[in-house]
Amino acid sequence: MKQRRTPPTAADRYGIKTLQSSLKSMEGIYQCDANYVHLSPISFLERAGIAYADKVSIVYGSVRYTWRETLERCRRLASALTQMGISHGDIVAAFAPNIPALYELHFGTPMAGAILCALNAWQDSAMLSMRLSELEAKIIFVDSQHLEVVLEAFDILSTKGTKPPMLVLISENDQEISPTVSNTASGNLEYENLLAKGRPDFQVIRPKDECDPISVSYTSGTTSNPKGVVHCHRSAYLNSLAEILLNGMGLMPVYLWTVPMFHCNGWCFPWVMAALGGTNICLRNVSAKIIFDSIAEHKVTHLGGAPSILTMIANAPASDRKPLSYTVEIMTGGAPPPPQVLFNIEGQGFHVTHSYGMSETLGPGTVCMWKPEWESLPRSEQAKLKSRQGLQQLLMEDVDIKDPITMESLPSDGKTIGEVMLRGNVVMRGYFKNLKATNESFRGGWYRTGDLGVRYPDGYIEVKDRSVDVIVSGGENISTVEVETVLFSHPAIFEAVVVGRPDDQLGEVSCAFVKLKEECNASAEEIINFCGHHMPQYMVPRTVIFEEPPKTSTGKMQKYVLREKAKAMGSLPF
Amino acid sequence: MKQRRTPPTAADRYGIKTLQSSLKSMEGIYQCDANYVHLSPISFLERAGIAYADKVSIVYGSVRYTWRETLERCRRLASALTQMGISHGDIVAAFAPNIPALYELHFGTPMAGAILCALNAWQDSAMLSMRLSELEAKIIFVDSQHLEVVLEAFDILSTKGTKPPMLVLISENDQEISPTVSNTASGNLEYENLLAKGRPDFQVIRPKDECDPISVSYTSGTTSNPKGVVHCHRSAYLNSLAEILLNGMGLMPVYLWTVPMFHCNGWCFPWVMAALGGTNICLRNVSAKIIFDSIAEHKVTHLGGAPSILTMIANAPASDRKPLSYTVEIMTGGAPPPPQVLFNIEGQGFHVTHSYGMSETLGPGTVCMWKPEWESLPRSEQAKLKSRQGLQQLLMEDVDIKDPITMESLPSDGKTIGEVMLRGNVVMRGYFKNLKATNESFRGGWYRTGDLGVRYPDGYIEVKDRSVDVIVSGGENISTVEVETVLFSHPAIFEAVVVGRPDDQLGEVSCAFVKLKEECNASAEEIINFCGHHMPQYMVPRTVIFEEPPKTSTGKMQKYVLREKAKAMGSLPF
Repeated sequence: MKQRRTPPTAADRYGIKTLQSSLKSMEGIYQCDANYVHLSPISFLERAGIAYADKVSIVYGSVRYTWRETLERCRRLASALTQMGISHGDIVAAFAPNIPALYELHFGTPMAGAILCALNAWQDSAMLSMRLSELEAKIIFVDSQHLEVVLEAFDILSTKGTKPPMLVLISENDQEISPTVSNTASGNLEYENLLAKGRPDFQVIRPKDECDPISVSYTSGTTSNPKGVVHCHRSAYLNSLAEILLNGMGLMPVYLWTVPMFHCNGWCFPWVMAALGGTNICLRNVSAKIIFDSIAEHKVTHLGGAPSILTMIANAPASDRKPLSYTVEIMTGGAPPPPQVLFNIEGQGFHVTHSYGMSETLGPGTVCMWKPEWESLPRSEQAKLKSRQGLQQLLMEDVDIKDPITMESLPSDGKTIGEVMLRGNVVMRGYFKNLKATNESFRGGWYRTGDLGVRYPDGYIEVKDRSVDVIVSGGENISTVEVETVLFSHPAIFEAVVVGRPDDQLGEVSCAFVKLKEECNASAEEIINFCGHHMPQYMVPRTVIFEEPPKTSTGKMQKYVLREKAKAMGSLPF
Repeated sequence: MKQRRTPPTAADRYGIKTLQSSLKSMEGIYQCDANYVHLSPISFLERAGIAYADKVSIVYGSVRYTWRETLERCRRLASALTQMGISHGDIVAAFAPNIPALYELHFGTPMAGAILCALNAWQDSAMLSMRLSELEAKIIFVDSQHLEVVLEAFDILSTKGTKPPMLVLISENDQEISPTVSNTASGNLEYENLLAKGRPDFQVIRPKDECDPISVSYTSGTTSNPKGVVHCHRSAYLNSLAEILLNGMGLMPVYLWTVPMFHCNGWCFPWVMAALGGTNICLRNVSAKIIFDSIAEHKVTHLGGAPSILTMIANAPASDRKPLSYTVEIMTGGAPPPPQVLFNIEGQGFHVTHSYGMSETLGPGTVCMWKPEWESLPRSEQAKLKSRQGLQQLLMEDVDIKDPITMESLPSDGKTIGEVMLRGNVVMRGYFKNLKATNESFRGGWYRTGDLGVRYPDGYIEVKDRSVDVIVSGGENISTVEVETVLFSHPAIFEAVVVGRPDDQLGEVSCAFVKLKEECNASAEEIINFCGHHMPQYMVPRTVIFEEPPKTSTGKMQKYVLREKAKAMGSLPF
């Protein structure tokens, strides 16, 4: 051991940062580098690079990385960003599907002190130009197959006199996956070249405060224009732990990337996987066949499934399926799984965990925790219990059903409808450049979800509808979710969406948009008749339209489009 | 829904607390009640009271509580403490074994804004009086069977002119467990009466800051006088999550209380159990028979085991054992399990997770994470890998082996010995009223464990010895742990401790204190001979003394007592 050096100053020696004001009375204790570190998911990757050094971190076609390599690549990326002038608080945009580069950007960007905005790669150039105009990102990373849309969006920006961000092209060397596009963007930077310039020993930049932003994620836009949800390092760190705990995940899982990373940061899973040293199976496209093939090839343990993914699996043709040799965990959210879909999927050997959240909670806000005593109940009863949204997950502080005007808690009677409200460390910091929307959503000190629900005597909540979706018919509230659940139980129906249609007498009546299963038949009259046997008369749709419901790029139904359509139909004649 | 009230003020409406300084540049985001809650394990209990309302929280003899009851009892306790004048930052002491009241104090005390000091209930009145004199607790909760010691300590305090704290007696109604003591402490308060006076709807007091102290826990005193380790709400919250993750614990475990709650807050498990809605099997005393009986009766899933508990299980007479019908998880720490003990215990159907920590880390600092590729190695190789202390657990930021003078990281070669250092949010706030000790332990911005160890190329660390325990013999360092591991592998040896004995020629030589197994025999010469075949000659003990090594109340070897004894022996003649 070496000789003692010149004694450092007191501040150096103890790394003392602050004396907590409320602790001043207790002698002998303080906060310093030894006992306080700003929470950040960056820590997960730095640990994974050692703890899981030789384990496979990413699989994408024939591409394989280990955690040692992923840590090094992310360090290089952060280093390169820093060299390009990106620093604390800058926004780095990305426009790509679930490819390795987008995974790496989830670490490389915050490791440079910057904020990641993974943009929905399914939007068109007009929408993209609006996002870019708002974001003022300094740089955008673009998947080669999505280059045209971005260049078009750049043209729109230029027309408006806005300077587009610097472009980094993510090209693919693996010809089996996709042909490298011709270099239409000459003069632009290329992702792998950039990494090569970055330093592998780059000193990672930590957040100045754990409440500093780590990401901006645009909402799917089910009810309005997408809003940029800002999350911080602390919420990303804590919500990653929450995902692990609520899904009962063990070390080194194999995760299939069916949920887009650009949707709510893939429900936190880029960070979760580093925390657990798991393997990311990256996918450019998703289909039932790809899902079953990937499970068989990579021994997938977990996947996320928006409602559309569950429906896809439930209705997969026999030729696309492969029998499961073990239970595969599916984490679902966005909408409660209809009982028929649930039975079908669990019958195939999947186990479904239903949680409820939104971009504003960076994934799960509540979870329908399963109770052992429910095991002995009839299957239909189980499905009913499972479709409830449940209780706040462990790291969400509280959930409540409140009167949105008085903020009083409503009775836990399973009947009284109020607004679902959440509060806790995993709630967003607010909406990007939209103080009005932030204020509106945090009014009263709770995050107002805009969803309407009830609370049962056991404390579990159930979402009945989005407040904008609820149909008011002759003074009665109709939960469109309840009507849809009945429609889904019809053997011929593949998908169903219910909205209000104007009615001169009742104000509104329900109107169903329905897609039938292939080779199935059912008339509007038959469906209306079926509903009449399964719900009160006032809820029964008066109109059934056979048409595939439009969805957002993340698989959520775009009710507002259908609502406009139904509105245009006008009232039914008496 | 009710009418809108008079509009609240802006601060009321949004519950805005602070605008993060570093975020000022980003419009639209802020910190408020909706998105920031001070981390505290209190949240776990409030959630358990709803999520696990009817599940059994505590079993103690014929006593049973549910989580609804435990939440209510802790609210009553906090309310009663508040009524008695206890408030933010006050210290509440307890002197009791693992009975339900001590569990409830882990929540009731912080829920009144106060700080819990669970005192070692095995210490004598002289030691206790010193702790009480330092603590200046306003109140002490005392188990009826421990009343005499406390009253004696009060007498000592009175002699010195110090006013003793208010005493609350915890009596037991269950005659099967223990006879209620005669009311020698008339005029004092009684625990159940106190709870009866508390309000079940008490508004829980949250910490003003998550870094406010939640507990003071005295160290076991293996090397010096016990020091009061102060932990905060944040570290208790985060380390509870760490325990769940590193032990792979699922929901609703059944935990057997073999680790004293007064030792490092039972490694965080009072809080862990509320987070998971588990069942606490409380125990006044521990023996191999009680452990096996409890497992059989209560379907125990997890227990903690200091080294002495592992030895107890490994050496239990056949009549005390019961075969396990499923794998029971044992979490061990304090010292690496000797391979023989490990083989024995795992052979019985237990699964051992070895983590390394100390009071200063509120439980595990590092964990020996098992790698799947080790499964195919020979058993002795596995035991060697498993006895390493491993890597920082997920919520500890970092572990390193450093030169304690220069603070440089030493090579990961498995050979170069340095000091084990840790840093992260689960490290203590400091030592109670002992700024000098705090400064010394945080010098350089890391927590200095005082343990000496090496780091292997795979990043895993191994503790070789306490820096005060290491023997320097003829210029060579002897790891007493290594010599002890060899001694433990001798078939006749039950327990062994090695310390340095003065030597005129070599400075020090090793000296073994050994306890043989019942009905086993071995001479000093045989043991020395055995060592000669399993270690370099300079490490072999020159003296073997047949004597049961003294232990601390938490089962750790008191090497300093034996060191004194060996010192008194003087040098061996040439």
